[in-house]
Amino acid sequence: MTDTARGTSRRYGSRPTMKDVAARAGVGLKTVSRVVNGEPGVTPETERRVQDAITALGFRRNDSARILRKGRTASIGLVLEDLADPFYGPLSRAVEEVARDHGALLINGSSAEDPAREQELVLALCARRVDGLVIIPAADDHRYLEPEIAAGVATVFVDRPAGRIEADTVLSDSFGGARDAVAHLIAHGHRRIGFIGDQPRIHTAAERLRGYRTAMAGAGLAVDESWVSLGSTAPDRVRFAATAMLDGPRPVTALFAGNNRVTVTAVRVLAERPRPVALVGFDDFELADLVTPAITVVAQDAARLGRTAATMLFRRLEGTEIPPQRQEIPTRLVPRGSGELPPPADE
Amino acid sequence: MTDTARGTSRRYGSRPTMKDVAARAGVGLKTVSRVVNGEPGVTPETERRVQDAITALGFRRNDSARILRKGRTASIGLVLEDLADPFYGPLSRAVEEVARDHGALLINGSSAEDPAREQELVLALCARRVDGLVIIPAADDHRYLEPEIAAGVATVFVDRPAGRIEADTVLSDSFGGARDAVAHLIAHGHRRIGFIGDQPRIHTAAERLRGYRTAMAGAGLAVDESWVSLGSTAPDRVRFAATAMLDGPRPVTALFAGNNRVTVTAVRVLAERPRPVALVGFDDFELADLVTPAITVVAQDAARLGRTAATMLFRRLEGTEIPPQRQEIPTRLVPRGSGELPPPADE
Repeated sequence: MTDTARGTSRRYGSRPTMKDVAARAGVGLKTVSRVVNGEPGVTPETERRVQDAITALGFRRNDSARILRKGRTASIGLVLEDLADPFYGPLSRAVEEVARDHGALLINGSSAEDPAREQELVLALCARRVDGLVIIPAADDHRYLEPEIAAGVATVFVDRPAGRIEADTVLSDSFGGARDAVAHLIAHGHRRIGFIGDQPRIHTAAERLRGYRTAMAGAGLAVDESWVSLGSTAPDRVRFAATAMLDGPRPVTALFAGNNRVTVTAVRVLAERPRPVALVGFDDFELADLVTPAITVVAQDAARLGRTAATMLFRRLEGTEIPPQRQEIPTRLVPRGSGELPPPADE
Repeated sequence: MTDTARGTSRRYGSRPTMKDVAARAGVGLKTVSRVVNGEPGVTPETERRVQDAITALGFRRNDSARILRKGRTASIGLVLEDLADPFYGPLSRAVEEVARDHGALLINGSSAEDPAREQELVLALCARRVDGLVIIPAADDHRYLEPEIAAGVATVFVDRPAGRIEADTVLSDSFGGARDAVAHLIAHGHRRIGFIGDQPRIHTAAERLRGYRTAMAGAGLAVDESWVSLGSTAPDRVRFAATAMLDGPRPVTALFAGNNRVTVTAVRVLAERPRPVALVGFDDFELADLVTPAITVVAQDAARLGRTAATMLFRRLEGTEIPPQRQEIPTRLVPRGSGELPPPADE
């Protein structure tokens, strides 16, 4: 373990102690110890009083300090929203590498895009004494984290912002990337462009939609609302949305796909169409350059997102006491062919 | 939480108690409690005596039982070897779904293919009171887990077997799948077939090599050792190995790639060659059907591997007391084009 990680428990926060709990509950230290350690000899009423004090003070047994003292390894938690989304592979690995450089273990979990599950998982990781958390949030209200943060759990949000609390945050420039993608399609002659995105309550989906609308408006193009579809990224939903836009009364000649899950299905749908349709996808993905045509993408630097977030986290753990920071990582348009296809000649 | 998950602490194992530790160390219960909870008032010598007793008995504070008693959530740990390998996406998600069906949280970690790190991570998860573990092992000696298993942590190995301990295991049929893949290439006229695999100490790599050799021998074909290359799956290494086989004195006309990391690089290398080379890859991967030619693969059912392992784990947690089981999941050859290319006409 590095001195850095070891410094955590000394420098961070002013966690309430068992003594504070005992004082608040009006019981002896030994009673608190019994409740905390699940030992017998406490009446249900006293246990409830102690539990209330624990909750009110945000007390957690300081396992972490004990683990550090005994030379065990520090750990940080990473909460994803989907274990099977390849976008999170390089992000997770980058967080893991930074953790390892600091002598800390990384523990992951997934919210499966369920806010209740995110909260349950985050609190379970806190109860298991992680020293810090990197969170890709599914929830839009993170006030449940305030007692943990106050008790010294360093927390950084990545990919999506925290809801209703101030916190360190690292985001891709979803708005700018989306605007550039759509401007690119417009520059190649398209006027009717569809956008298929993730669920609108997800920050990145909303930002990419805003980028789409801004680029269209900037070129003086009115958006037909049948060209915009936000929702699940399940293949069936995306296939249905793409087909509706391509076969509708005012058919689109190009698609902008809001993330790699959408793009992969769009590639399949377009491969079955009689004539080429332009496509730009948000997120790069493996083999995007080897399908025909190769897929033009707005690449996010997932590894840099993870590395930046983890580095921020360890700075907090080392004792940096500055207001919450927000960093934005630029995206990069990678033209490969699919985004440079012109509209049909008869347009 | 389900009754199933809740049943864990009652039915499983005979964990040593604080009383056992106190008796062995020759100290009072309160002293043990102080040491375990990191409270002051214990001399270094006494602390060491208690620690020795804790180690000797394999004692762990029974946080888990306490968590269950207080209605908190049970958890299981999943140890992967690479966070960025897409093969583990559906496997992880399947384990997560089974865990959720049992009201339990899933916590992940990665060994990054480092045996020491695997052990560190597994013991860290045990110290954080996971109720069970699903492990894709990097190590080949798991005797370090024996005290944990004896103390009641249910453990299932998946994708690769446990080393030097008896344990529940779920594996793909790596040998049979590899043999079928190579036999398929032989049936399409190939006689000089290369095999590029992962590091030979990895069980799946060794089994797939055995399948390759068995198919070649079965067709009466001698293997030129320049056609076999095992090692890292890093793109540079795979590229070098493939190029050497394709440009060597007895050039191969077909490649069998030992896993999806190898296949993806092989696809890139072959796309740059002047004439087509047949390819079969072990593991299916996203877009394998959309590159040109589409890639013939031996598909593993990663989701079924994960589901089977997790189901086995929860059966153990429910109290099933049978000897360790080994399940093998069949693979499936998916012909798509690249594996059906004939050798050059002048062969």
